[in-house]
Amino acid sequence: VAGNISQKIGVLGGGQLGKMLYQSASRFGISMCIMDKDKTYPAGTVCPYFTEGDIISYKDVLAFGMDQDIVTIEIENVSTDALHELQALGKKVFPQPEILDIIKDKGRQKEYYRINGFSTSAFELYKDASDIKKAVIDGVLPYPFVQKSRTEGYDGRGVQIVRNENDLENLLDTASVVENLVQFKKEIAVIVARNTSGEVAAFPVVDMDFHPTANLVEFLICPSDLDKTIQESAQNLAKTLAESLGIVGLLAVEMFVDTNDKLLINEIAPRPHNSGHHTIDACVTSQYEQHIRSILDLPLGDTSLTQSAVMINLLGEPHYSGNVKYEGLEEILKLSGVYPHLYGKKETRPFRKMGHVTITDTDLKSAMNKARFVKQTLKVIS
Amino acid sequence: VAGNISQKIGVLGGGQLGKMLYQSASRFGISMCIMDKDKTYPAGTVCPYFTEGDIISYKDVLAFGMDQDIVTIEIENVSTDALHELQALGKKVFPQPEILDIIKDKGRQKEYYRINGFSTSAFELYKDASDIKKAVIDGVLPYPFVQKSRTEGYDGRGVQIVRNENDLENLLDTASVVENLVQFKKEIAVIVARNTSGEVAAFPVVDMDFHPTANLVEFLICPSDLDKTIQESAQNLAKTLAESLGIVGLLAVEMFVDTNDKLLINEIAPRPHNSGHHTIDACVTSQYEQHIRSILDLPLGDTSLTQSAVMINLLGEPHYSGNVKYEGLEEILKLSGVYPHLYGKKETRPFRKMGHVTITDTDLKSAMNKARFVKQTLKVIS
Repeated sequence: VAGNISQKIGVLGGGQLGKMLYQSASRFGISMCIMDKDKTYPAGTVCPYFTEGDIISYKDVLAFGMDQDIVTIEIENVSTDALHELQALGKKVFPQPEILDIIKDKGRQKEYYRINGFSTSAFELYKDASDIKKAVIDGVLPYPFVQKSRTEGYDGRGVQIVRNENDLENLLDTASVVENLVQFKKEIAVIVARNTSGEVAAFPVVDMDFHPTANLVEFLICPSDLDKTIQESAQNLAKTLAESLGIVGLLAVEMFVDTNDKLLINEIAPRPHNSGHHTIDACVTSQYEQHIRSILDLPLGDTSLTQSAVMINLLGEPHYSGNVKYEGLEEILKLSGVYPHLYGKKETRPFRKMGHVTITDTDLKSAMNKARFVKQTLKVIS
Repeated sequence: VAGNISQKIGVLGGGQLGKMLYQSASRFGISMCIMDKDKTYPAGTVCPYFTEGDIISYKDVLAFGMDQDIVTIEIENVSTDALHELQALGKKVFPQPEILDIIKDKGRQKEYYRINGFSTSAFELYKDASDIKKAVIDGVLPYPFVQKSRTEGYDGRGVQIVRNENDLENLLDTASVVENLVQFKKEIAVIVARNTSGEVAAFPVVDMDFHPTANLVEFLICPSDLDKTIQESAQNLAKTLAESLGIVGLLAVEMFVDTNDKLLINEIAPRPHNSGHHTIDACVTSQYEQHIRSILDLPLGDTSLTQSAVMINLLGEPHYSGNVKYEGLEEILKLSGVYPHLYGKKETRPFRKMGHVTITDTDLKSAMNKARFVKQTLKVIS
């Protein structure tokens, strides 16, 4: 029954996204189980119904899913074979496994854009490193270009820029998408949701400001400073893509804005996304609640921003490994509108995502100033 | 160490207040354990570290508390003897047991106000029902008056108005506070917090609109429509009381505003309170986070209201008992700024608190209109 909140929801993946999804579900008193390898993972600190199992194991996912009414994910890297089987057995699986198959393979993802007329940077597919080298030697692939592993990439892993012969020696020996290096002036993200009834809603555009070396978002800023018309185009592009795919649940769409203000789809994720963390503290409806509304076929929530927001990821400081400590927490808590979200990971490692902080203010400049202070002050050490 | 968030916090009581306290703690990645009789209680749906035990048992509370760095409560009705012992053994216990002793006994509470110069309605203490009857017969206690059981009262239980000889037959045979029936024009609540360092902060005044028969708050409205000067007086009164008690943690202060705009303290609660639920969705800092900041001696958070808010309790409909169902959820979720909090109780009973809904809007009238719609539309049945 649509909108029946007594349905059992099973989530594959117990990281921070699973944790925040559970926190949102628990406000509605929804019965949600989570599966991942170890109940000390972030979601295990909030979900008493945590099943230990391997999300890439066909057997484990199938067994877990059979107990649920709806199966969803917080990470793409799961056994889609098991999800297909669960769907065939009559379970609701959102996002649908056939969409996951497309998205998990960056090659198929890019081909989907090409075939369906969605703008993206020019690309070719290659079987492996020697295949790419051959193209360079044959003169059909000029420097610089971007190599992306077709599968297994996450948080910048499996992606590298190849600028010269030296870089060529470090090619990943894997089936790859090779893209033109886009000259872009900005990278943005739009999260959309689509429920079973086909209702679609987009969150406001966020500007993504990347850390120069770690290839992770440093500041995520909402509202965007792009022209309103470009923002609307970006929201419409994301909505159209969600409708084209027919996805149920969230779809995070990362885009480049090139030097001609043209939007190019970079990558997509069919789940809650780092670029939507701020929605918890700064939007009428959070991305997590929106995902739950989508898969339960409830009316989608208002995505409006209530205040300006800046989000920063809280990464383990370089040179620190071991039991986590937070330095500067007292200082940042003296400020108004500073929301630390600490994921509850016991161990820190260099650049590990240990939490995030959302900073809100009625004025974006003030939010930005506070965010810079938080970034300088709050440190994850051991 | 002040502000050390790696301290273990143990909470006595696993109802909805414990649930929401845990939800707030989990955002900070804080290690929090909860004890109550049954892990199917609301807090057991969000806290994987739920210990089954009896919060009024000396032995259970002592054993539970020995494992913690800080012990706190979500309900007053706990073994304060065990809390005294834990404090003597060097544990931090907030609120402090000696303050709980005063507050749990409405007789001592009223005497505290009298001795320390806090305005409250006139009262006398009586040993039992016959003692009260004697005073009526002797002509020293005129109708109407209010009988309040000195202990065990909660959510309007243990409180009754005695208007005539018939009512006199229904007196509770218990040690009682007997108060003048105050002619008041409004009942309000102010929640304050005080941390170990002595910092004190008050949330905005809320207007409490009671249900005529169930003796439970029907609409809780913030901001209050009282004059700003009266609101400031109410906040100052609550702060002064918290400082006078020296309490660490939250103190909810319910007050009457009499026909001369004089403030009279009605009752207090040393914990998160029903009149502060809206702070989750409508204040910069929630009462739950504020409680955690207080007991960890972190800086107190900004208590400002970000939007107008109306809160309604979601009670089990009369004539329905059994497995809970929610009627009208889809309808209310079509509105913007409507936040249902369903506590996850499996069984409904007439007038049982099953959840609450916070309704926010930039405009209070619009919030009120939406709240009336929610009240008419969302029903807890079986």
